[in-house]
Amino acid sequence: MDNVYAPGRNHLFVPGPVNIPEPVLRAMNRNNEDYRSPAIPAMTKVLLEDVKKIFKTTTGTPFMIPTTGTGAWESALTNTLSPGDRIVSFLIGQFSLLWIDQQQRLNFKVDVVESEWGQGANLDILASKIAEDTAHTIKAVCIVHNETATGVTNNLATVRKILDHYRHPALFLVDGVSSICALDFRMDEWGVDVALTGSQKALSLPTGIGIVCASPKALEASKTAKSVRVFFDWNDYLKFYKMGTYWPYTPSIQLLYGLRAALDLLFEEGLDNVIARHSRLGKATRLAVEAWGLKNCTQKEEWVSDTVTAVLVPPYIDSTEIVRRAWKRYNLSLGLGLNKIAGKVFRIGHLGNLNELQLLGCLAGVEMVLRDVGYPVKLGSGVAAASAYLQNNIPLIPSRV
Amino acid sequence: MDNVYAPGRNHLFVPGPVNIPEPVLRAMNRNNEDYRSPAIPAMTKVLLEDVKKIFKTTTGTPFMIPTTGTGAWESALTNTLSPGDRIVSFLIGQFSLLWIDQQQRLNFKVDVVESEWGQGANLDILASKIAEDTAHTIKAVCIVHNETATGVTNNLATVRKILDHYRHPALFLVDGVSSICALDFRMDEWGVDVALTGSQKALSLPTGIGIVCASPKALEASKTAKSVRVFFDWNDYLKFYKMGTYWPYTPSIQLLYGLRAALDLLFEEGLDNVIARHSRLGKATRLAVEAWGLKNCTQKEEWVSDTVTAVLVPPYIDSTEIVRRAWKRYNLSLGLGLNKIAGKVFRIGHLGNLNELQLLGCLAGVEMVLRDVGYPVKLGSGVAAASAYLQNNIPLIPSRV
Amino acid sequence: MDNVYAPGRNHLFVPGPVNIPEPVLRAMNRNNEDYRSPAIPAMTKVLLEDVKKIFKTTTGTPFMIPTTGTGAWESALTNTLSPGDRIVSFLIGQFSLLWIDQQQRLNFKVDVVESEWGQGANLDILASKIAEDTAHTIKAVCIVHNETATGVTNNLATVRKILDHYRHPALFLVDGVSSICALDFRMDEWGVDVALTGSQKALSLPTGIGIVCASPKALEASKTAKSVRVFFDWNDYLKFYKMGTYWPYTPSIQLLYGLRAALDLLFEEGLDNVIARHSRLGKATRLAVEAWGLKNCTQKEEWVSDTVTAVLVPPYIDSTEIVRRAWKRYNLSLGLGLNKIAGKVFRIGHLGNLNELQLLGCLAGVEMVLRDVGYPVKLGSGVAAASAYLQNNIPLIPSRV
Amino acid sequence: MDNVYAPGRNHLFVPGPVNIPEPVLRAMNRNNEDYRSPAIPAMTKVLLEDVKKIFKTTTGTPFMIPTTGTGAWESALTNTLSPGDRIVSFLIGQFSLLWIDQQQRLNFKVDVVESEWGQGANLDILASKIAEDTAHTIKAVCIVHNETATGVTNNLATVRKILDHYRHPALFLVDGVSSICALDFRMDEWGVDVALTGSQKALSLPTGIGIVCASPKALEASKTAKSVRVFFDWNDYLKFYKMGTYWPYTPSIQLLYGLRAALDLLFEEGLDNVIARHSRLGKATRLAVEAWGLKNCTQKEEWVSDTVTAVLVPPYIDSTEIVRRAWKRYNLSLGLGLNKIAGKVFRIGHLGNLNELQLLGCLAGVEMVLRDVGYPVKLGSGVAAASAYLQNNIPLIPSRV
Repeated sequence: MDNVYAPGRNHLFVPGPVNIPEPVLRAMNRNNEDYRSPAIPAMTKVLLEDVKKIFKTTTGTPFMIPTTGTGAWESALTNTLSPGDRIVSFLIGQFSLLWIDQQQRLNFKVDVVESEWGQGANLDILASKIAEDTAHTIKAVCIVHNETATGVTNNLATVRKILDHYRHPALFLVDGVSSICALDFRMDEWGVDVALTGSQKALSLPTGIGIVCASPKALEASKTAKSVRVFFDWNDYLKFYKMGTYWPYTPSIQLLYGLRAALDLLFEEGLDNVIARHSRLGKATRLAVEAWGLKNCTQKEEWVSDTVTAVLVPPYIDSTEIVRRAWKRYNLSLGLGLNKIAGKVFRIGHLGNLNELQLLGCLAGVEMVLRDVGYPVKLGSGVAAASAYLQNNIPLIPSRV
Repeated sequence: MDNVYAPGRNHLFVPGPVNIPEPVLRAMNRNNEDYRSPAIPAMTKVLLEDVKKIFKTTTGTPFMIPTTGTGAWESALTNTLSPGDRIVSFLIGQFSLLWIDQQQRLNFKVDVVESEWGQGANLDILASKIAEDTAHTIKAVCIVHNETATGVTNNLATVRKILDHYRHPALFLVDGVSSICALDFRMDEWGVDVALTGSQKALSLPTGIGIVCASPKALEASKTAKSVRVFFDWNDYLKFYKMGTYWPYTPSIQLLYGLRAALDLLFEEGLDNVIARHSRLGKATRLAVEAWGLKNCTQKEEWVSDTVTAVLVPPYIDSTEIVRRAWKRYNLSLGLGLNKIAGKVFRIGHLGNLNELQLLGCLAGVEMVLRDVGYPVKLGSGVAAASAYLQNNIPLIPSRV
Repeated sequence: MDNVYAPGRNHLFVPGPVNIPEPVLRAMNRNNEDYRSPAIPAMTKVLLEDVKKIFKTTTGTPFMIPTTGTGAWESALTNTLSPGDRIVSFLIGQFSLLWIDQQQRLNFKVDVVESEWGQGANLDILASKIAEDTAHTIKAVCIVHNETATGVTNNLATVRKILDHYRHPALFLVDGVSSICALDFRMDEWGVDVALTGSQKALSLPTGIGIVCASPKALEASKTAKSVRVFFDWNDYLKFYKMGTYWPYTPSIQLLYGLRAALDLLFEEGLDNVIARHSRLGKATRLAVEAWGLKNCTQKEEWVSDTVTAVLVPPYIDSTEIVRRAWKRYNLSLGLGLNKIAGKVFRIGHLGNLNELQLLGCLAGVEMVLRDVGYPVKLGSGVAAASAYLQNNIPLIPSRV
Repeated sequence: MDNVYAPGRNHLFVPGPVNIPEPVLRAMNRNNEDYRSPAIPAMTKVLLEDVKKIFKTTTGTPFMIPTTGTGAWESALTNTLSPGDRIVSFLIGQFSLLWIDQQQRLNFKVDVVESEWGQGANLDILASKIAEDTAHTIKAVCIVHNETATGVTNNLATVRKILDHYRHPALFLVDGVSSICALDFRMDEWGVDVALTGSQKALSLPTGIGIVCASPKALEASKTAKSVRVFFDWNDYLKFYKMGTYWPYTPSIQLLYGLRAALDLLFEEGLDNVIARHSRLGKATRLAVEAWGLKNCTQKEEWVSDTVTAVLVPPYIDSTEIVRRAWKRYNLSLGLGLNKIAGKVFRIGHLGNLNELQLLGCLAGVEMVLRDVGYPVKLGSGVAAASAYLQNNIPLIPSRV
């Protein structure tokens, strides 16, 4: 069952699924329970309140759906839109591409705004589309907050500003899969109508819960949205919320307790501290990349991502070989380049329950792999650059002061 | 987090989610992994082969979808049918009702064949509908193998005989949620086109995998089925099967290892022995019910279920009180009566990784609860009846002979 | 590794090691830690305070020694006595016999007061020995509170009365291995000088901590006791207690967290409620034995044990066969008869984190085994007798009221 | 319970207890079992055979004692020697000092051969003592293979050569606590009479098993050794070995399964590969220390230890502050300087289930801590030196080739 055993810990630096902290593993190490007993609804009620905090919303309604990010996407779209609805969507990497593919297969008319991979969403085009759309034919703007394939973070505040400027009523749907609980995200302040994430990303749980949060406007839209949906229908949840039993079908008992533990850890650390930690990890990684003489796939500073860094390799190197070798020799799991950047980038995920020394171990590993594949990196250079920054910026661990 | 703690083990006798065996809990007690490393596809490949065994199919194609039974239903329907398609479906209890509700919401034309709750599917009506349908307007027959709400097992072999007799090409879709891995189920022999189950039932895992198995005929149908689907689309899986990476989106690493362990246990015990064990547990439960002077909700012997027994209570007793009290006083979790039989039945789930002494503990508990709520049961009577049968029929544990 | 797998739970009814509750398993599911970090001493400090509560002492000093009950015995004796010291000890079963064997091998002069197995310690003889010993040559009275081999509980209050009556200064050393946390035990009130237990008994942990608690008088005695000891020397602990680092050698991190969780559960339930629960379980078991027409090995009501019941079998039956068959056919673990009562009794342990339905499942299993081996028990009779009592006496679970 | 929580993994680099691999944690995540059932003796039998392999002995007899290293010491001494026996023992650091203290308290006459801390055992003095002792008054030579306090590895082969050269019959007792399963150790080839280790060191388990292995000559000596012992008496074990039940008192079920898993991992990796890995980790650490401009506490290359490196700090720095700060700021656990080198060294443990990237993360952390406390280390310098060596020497992971 563990046919690829290697001594020591696996160094997991893909941008999801990410490392699960021990307290969460412990919380999930349990037998099943009757989800109709009084205990599970009581727990669910509090979870639903607490989960709103990671979206920074007080007015949103969250749904914890037993599904993946892909299912969460589908839930967001089908509950708010009707077939034939026009939406604007930004193609900037593999995950935005997949979401657009889903949007098209769900029969929406998608205005695809494409950028070069490595660039952020082209919000100028959005602005002109919104400006032109005085008839309000655009029903939704769909955007991936953080494109995991290229390490690009989009500016959501600007999207809101554009919509507000033109008083455009389009719904604002956000994929926060690799951002929420790691990057600054403000559902209420930015007027996001549907935001979603998956348990296996910054929440640091196993895969299995797609968390979708709907604004009052989105809930209102769901009443008239004609997309066919059953499993993903918010209405079934709302019915059970009202009854106080909460679950239209069997939830994973283990993931509920795991989510409870994960939120407890996030709140203990403090959401702002969590975001600051990700900022440190991102900055340190980028400094290392620079020290190695390599380029970040992200083309401008304004788009750099604090949860994943996609590193461009020289043309004479196949980045797939880097990922393969990292795993085979150093027990280091890095992210592949996907689709049109396959072979051209490798990715370092630095999100979730992760600390600085783990990252430095990874960076030291990447340096060795780079040498292995023929790139003449100066060993220690990335670690030095990263730790020079970190040594000045890591706070004392609050519980240990 | 465990705000309803009680000493000793919880006695979990709802018909799902069921008890998880320790080896499975152990297998799932692990950090996340990169699902794109060579390890996970290698493991998935073998799992897909092994999972076919629990369906008794060699020609079927299984899909292990990160969803619940409700999602598995949707996957079965949307991949094989088009909106407006006529299907025959049997309403015999809460879960068949919910499936029919889904079928209608997915825009199929459903011929609902209703029986009294406690009776099996009316296959005579099926026969006449099939006989009449020489134009083959019926595209599918949908049936719940074991109705968990009433403890009724339908005769799938007869459904096949009817279809064969009239050479009717309708697809044969089966909900095996509370039957597969516990009751006799033969996908190939019975010509089932889509069969499905959920991980939290007889497989004795946490909720989180909907396993759907499609016959070649069902796969063929999926090529022309026009129901809109993305998350549940088999085609995305098939594409990744071909590439050998297997996963269109992130699976739960923990559930994969858990499934591996669960299958290992099933195969070690032997699938036929597992079914025989459920038969013993079912028979013993029914003998106890009889000894208590109570009636089985299932009206005829031909329909009795070996995975769940719904017990009718006298009119002067509220079965909800039985379930509540069992949990509050004896740490015993029983199943509620649902929908139109709410208050009238309580249910004893006896499926999954369970043995005879666990069941006898439960039966002893039920006896005490019955007294608590005013039913004058003779204490020990059900246990005596059950154990008289069991003592003659339990085999030695093979690994300990 | 699990070469004796059987479906469902193992029914563990040996009188130790006992069932570990899930919250304790969870707490122990963790990596090692530096035991010299600030965290472990802080935790140890509180544990040492809390552990005194299970002994009902405020003046005692506890030692949590990485050893078994046998080691705890050795710790109690060697720290308080010198070679050649005269002690009185009661031989009433296998465990008191083993302790006496240890006492003799440690070169104490032991006045062995023997009773028939099945009887309690003969305190009349103690009284006369104490009365006669005006020269105070008796340095200690050693007694097993609950003899696990025969299910006999001794009356510790009477021992204290005797000593007080004659104003005899002998130390009062008590093996509380199968009593503490389950039976009424009052270290301070009864003037016990050393009391000890093991983690795998009523504390419901794995084996690995011998907890020894010393009265101020015992601590005083340790200053002059000449028995050679190093690993078991209290003085090494006391030195580290003073320094605030607490550990003279590496403790098991996992067991410390496990002990924390175990105490939390005990305190949540309430120690008096825990004792009342054991009283119910013991009473119920004895009623079942009686209903089966079998005799309790314990000869008088005053000595019956609420943590273990040794059941005498008819002469034509080999009790070893009962234990073997229970394990081979029913996944039920019962206690063997030991030494001179081997083959003549089997034992039902009913201590630790256990509830009534678990016990009833066990009793139902015993009934079937008895039939298997040719004893004509009426099936259900024991369960009926036990549950008639239990149904009148089980309280509601406080956290669920 | 986790009142010192910090995000990400704790970086555990004390020289014990060490990191437990996930498969071992999984194996230990289980309920108690009856240790008198057939399963546990069957398992124990194989464990006893397998455990001999880690000592490289075929003729030795192992004892798996529920105790710590301190208890294992006591077992080794009291089973082979009598009070008053003359032994030679080497004082080279805190752990050899503690063993000598034990030897003296157990009433042996100890010829203490002292070296400066940082030096190995003075074997020249041993040679002259042995040469002079033609009357064979020396009953045993006791030596710590690897002194954990100073990072000094002694040359055991030379000890054997000295004894053989003078045909001296003294027993050869070895503390292998921080060497066995990590350093080259050959019980049979080196004629070691008693070797011992603890579960929480290179075996990478929790604390709780002291493994003591006795040569035939040691077993013979135990027959006449007059030291008082009960809990640690080998004879009790041997009696139960003969009966095939193996355990004189209750073992930890969890640790037995854990040991099984730990040995499986060691054998899968291959004991020689494990030793080679430790050699790499040790060498890399020493290269880093050199690059930092710091001195190894170990004074000569011949004594350097591949399991722990004690690093001397400049006189103006307090090494205790390094350890404190590492834990408080970086979640890094380093070893303190002990006793006379307290404040003067900090220690990096690099033993057990550990890989190169973990070590590099630690080294990067040490660099930052050094800066924090005012030592002007060049950040990245140690990592660079270590990884330059490692990148040339790490093999591919066999299971992943």
